[in-house]
Amino acid sequence: MRGRMRDAASYAPSVQLGEVMVGGAVGRITESRTPAYSIGEIVEGRLGWQEYAVSDGRDLRRVDPALGPLPTSLGILGMPGMTAYFGFLDVCNPTPGDTVVVSAASGAVGQVVGQIAKIMGCYVVGTAGSQEKIDYIVNELGFDVGINYKTENVAEALASACPLGIDIYFDNVGGPVSDAVLENLADFARISVCGQISQYNLAEPEMGPRNTRNLTTHQARMEGFLVFQFASRHEEGRQRIARWIKEGKMKYKEDVVEGIENAPAAFIGMMNGENFGKLLIKVSDE
Amino acid sequence: MRGRMRDAASYAPSVQLGEVMVGGAVGRITESRTPAYSIGEIVEGRLGWQEYAVSDGRDLRRVDPALGPLPTSLGILGMPGMTAYFGFLDVCNPTPGDTVVVSAASGAVGQVVGQIAKIMGCYVVGTAGSQEKIDYIVNELGFDVGINYKTENVAEALASACPLGIDIYFDNVGGPVSDAVLENLADFARISVCGQISQYNLAEPEMGPRNTRNLTTHQARMEGFLVFQFASRHEEGRQRIARWIKEGKMKYKEDVVEGIENAPAAFIGMMNGENFGKLLIKVSDE
Repeated sequence: MRGRMRDAASYAPSVQLGEVMVGGAVGRITESRTPAYSIGEIVEGRLGWQEYAVSDGRDLRRVDPALGPLPTSLGILGMPGMTAYFGFLDVCNPTPGDTVVVSAASGAVGQVVGQIAKIMGCYVVGTAGSQEKIDYIVNELGFDVGINYKTENVAEALASACPLGIDIYFDNVGGPVSDAVLENLADFARISVCGQISQYNLAEPEMGPRNTRNLTTHQARMEGFLVFQFASRHEEGRQRIARWIKEGKMKYKEDVVEGIENAPAAFIGMMNGENFGKLLIKVSDE
Repeated sequence: MRGRMRDAASYAPSVQLGEVMVGGAVGRITESRTPAYSIGEIVEGRLGWQEYAVSDGRDLRRVDPALGPLPTSLGILGMPGMTAYFGFLDVCNPTPGDTVVVSAASGAVGQVVGQIAKIMGCYVVGTAGSQEKIDYIVNELGFDVGINYKTENVAEALASACPLGIDIYFDNVGGPVSDAVLENLADFARISVCGQISQYNLAEPEMGPRNTRNLTTHQARMEGFLVFQFASRHEEGRQRIARWIKEGKMKYKEDVVEGIENAPAAFIGMMNGENFGKLLIKVSDE
């Protein structure tokens, strides 16, 4: 969404002035002129930041309320959950015993990545920006170690927490946290470049140390991905995560802000890490 | 070799003061106390910068003189050739029609990468540091375009030469040339980080723009590798390249400096791009 708010090329076109801001939403059909959807059905899609939306139906997907509460269709059972599931399992090729580092570990994607990694027997270190978030990922989600990137020397903390080196880095933030990881790679490490939120608000590219040589030294792979490339398999990920939640093996945290008028401020706050869990805007009651 | 000349961690241990500098060499057995090798046989191995070497035989490989002149066992049929063959075919996953960019394109590795890419039907752009080298890769080796990184705006030249974006980047240099490539990627691009010679002589890491976000936008992969990881298949690469040379489909260029006393100056010159083709030191006649 941040990329769509500026006039520069990205994987998605920019939102033009006067247009509705693009964003995922879940809601109930209140009127229908297509036989594909009936009034009362729950659908999710990129409907934008608005209380009511018109769609030709092609971008919608039916939400199965049996899988979980409706807001999960935008979070752990929606785009962020699928990003975590496929970005971790398909891009990072984890094996049990791997040392896994997740940045923005309490965020919508990071919290899911870390829990999948724990389910499959990895050793998991998360970075986050407050003691409250660190406590949550360690005590509630079962991460092995939490590092507060605002108060700790991340490179030293990683070296100490990961004596065998880092096999997998699931990167949501970029910037200095990623630099610190690059200095602590294990051989044949895999890095998935999911997001670079530390960079999204910069007018000009930030400078950082040239450190791609570490990829050669450690025969390591760094790969960017978009959740859309796994679209044909999203249902697999959704069913799997829903089952883990039902079995009590996975938790999730949502940060719900009431009222669409508060969406811009909440969005800006998220850029600064002020949210805690998947940020949602509640625009009406069910 | 440059990494072994400094007291910092790399994939290989540093050479200590007073030790023989490590380096590949080809030569003839003049004395033998092992039944594994007989006097007169030609062998290649990491025998160091010296005119005579003692080996227990474990690091040696027999050279088949029928495959090509002996110096090729250190170049196109040796480590650089295998680096090109596996680094391109196995790490970059090329398909016919791909737009391929090779940096240090007239060097020991780059010249082989570009020619394999042409053999398999790719469109190939090379970067090099002199008009003589550009003429060579285009007129002799069949590259489609050559870009002189010392005199041209590389980002603009790449954008013009690669209107569909860059599918594959075989990187030998790093630094600003790589920055320019990262701004011109095609979706699902593959980058093999083979060498970063622009960085090897820096005492401190150079700063550059943080541009890994391009990997996400283009769902692109950047992967470091070492030729050793393909050791079990080197013979495959050697036989294949030797056949291409015999069939006239592949050429190679060597830059031979006479006398071991000239090795240090030649090595320093190579760091500045003064060699033209695979740099070899001739220490004696056959």
